[in-house]
Amino acid sequence: MTRYALTIEFDGTPFMGLQRQAHGPSVQQTVEEAVRQVTGEAATLHSSGRTDAGVHALAMRSHVDIAKPFTPFRLMEALNALMRPAPVAVIDCEVVPDDWHARFSCIGRCYLYRIVKRRAPLPLEKNGAWHVARPLDAEAQHGAAHHLAGLHVYTPYHSVHCQAKDTGEAHVRQDRRHEVDLVLIEAAARSFLHHQVRSMVGTLALVGLGRWSEDQVAQALAARERQALGLNAPPDGLYFVRAFYPGED
Amino acid sequence: MTRYALTIEFDGTPFMGLQRQAHGPSVQQTVEEAVRQVTGEAATLHSSGRTDAGVHALAMRSHVDIAKPFTPFRLMEALNALMRPAPVAVIDCEVVPDDWHARFSCIGRCYLYRIVKRRAPLPLEKNGAWHVARPLDAEAQHGAAHHLAGLHVYTPYHSVHCQAKDTGEAHVRQDRRHEVDLVLIEAAARSFLHHQVRSMVGTLALVGLGRWSEDQVAQALAARERQALGLNAPPDGLYFVRAFYPGED
Repeated sequence: MTRYALTIEFDGTPFMGLQRQAHGPSVQQTVEEAVRQVTGEAATLHSSGRTDAGVHALAMRSHVDIAKPFTPFRLMEALNALMRPAPVAVIDCEVVPDDWHARFSCIGRCYLYRIVKRRAPLPLEKNGAWHVARPLDAEAQHGAAHHLAGLHVYTPYHSVHCQAKDTGEAHVRQDRRHEVDLVLIEAAARSFLHHQVRSMVGTLALVGLGRWSEDQVAQALAARERQALGLNAPPDGLYFVRAFYPGED
Repeated sequence: MTRYALTIEFDGTPFMGLQRQAHGPSVQQTVEEAVRQVTGEAATLHSSGRTDAGVHALAMRSHVDIAKPFTPFRLMEALNALMRPAPVAVIDCEVVPDDWHARFSCIGRCYLYRIVKRRAPLPLEKNGAWHVARPLDAEAQHGAAHHLAGLHVYTPYHSVHCQAKDTGEAHVRQDRRHEVDLVLIEAAARSFLHHQVRSMVGTLALVGLGRWSEDQVAQALAARERQALGLNAPPDGLYFVRAFYPGED
């Protein structure tokens, strides 16, 4: 058996999530069926993170064990050819040691959340961002993001880097791009609780909308109950950006 | 009659183009039908540029004359409500003088072309970029872009700015973003010939693929016949970015 690490990009819109689900299509099922068609083997896909229905991935890391010999390039090409037209693509493939595990070897995950703030609908960002039509107070959000970085009280934030210039903690960045008010929120940690990023972003949005104060955020965090945080932001704006492993850049 | 300037974003994928067409849906038809529903008036939409089938716009500028009184905000809201779920949105609306004309007052247009260079398909960029699966030589493309800026021989390039940091001439920029090799080509000019940007980009791609030399590009330009240029790049990667008017930033 050879272990192949796959880097996978997908548009989560048509899927019930990354993990195989009884009640609808998943990314895992799509990849595993392609592997079975290519190899005749019933392989299991293991991935660094789980994602909810509608959540996207720029570079999910996964692995699969296959007995039939392939070069990584040919395996990638064959899987991509068979998965069309599903919005899933293997963008990188390499042979890894048998003790490398996409989930258990992973020492950090990075997520990106995209909010577009404007009145008008989003023709070009449909399903790819959270559309917030009411004004958001960026200053208040920056303050609250500072508290939310304190989430490391119960889920440690490490100095993993999403991109070279990032601090690795949850922070809010604003871009004015082509008339669009885009808010990007990045969060990197060793691991995340279920819905944690969406809960953080939803809470930031409540602060931005003036419905929660920074104090309320601090109090909710002090209670250390995620249920005490605000609404979950919709999955459309959430992207799994990358996974980190020992010995990689 | 009051003249309203509309800034319009659209996903060109389902349209035969911006201009009204006998044989299929257009952005113009979509907006004009919404205006008719809102006002009861048969108004004509005039726009700063024409776009082909499948070409997108981040901020097309257009105008329409309406007798029924509206605040710009209410007009924008009403049009957007009526155009759903078509991927067209009015992202800005203002009253302009009667002698302001979206097409004839326009002194510059800026287009962006997006190429993604990689083997794997594009789940998240479907219809939003030209997918080039073979390697492109960026150095050769930079050289050829220098020649293509010479297109001002017959279509003057002016020092209009797409974004503050741009030179305003055709240039190639490379970004390494989340494992994706993205090439961005911007072109700004007073006006463009039909298919001009797609022809320029297609020619650059031929150079990048090693099928045309810089000399061939220079020769084709010296012949001053656009037919002598290479293939037209597909519409999916082309975005009308913005229009420029006297007295605006």
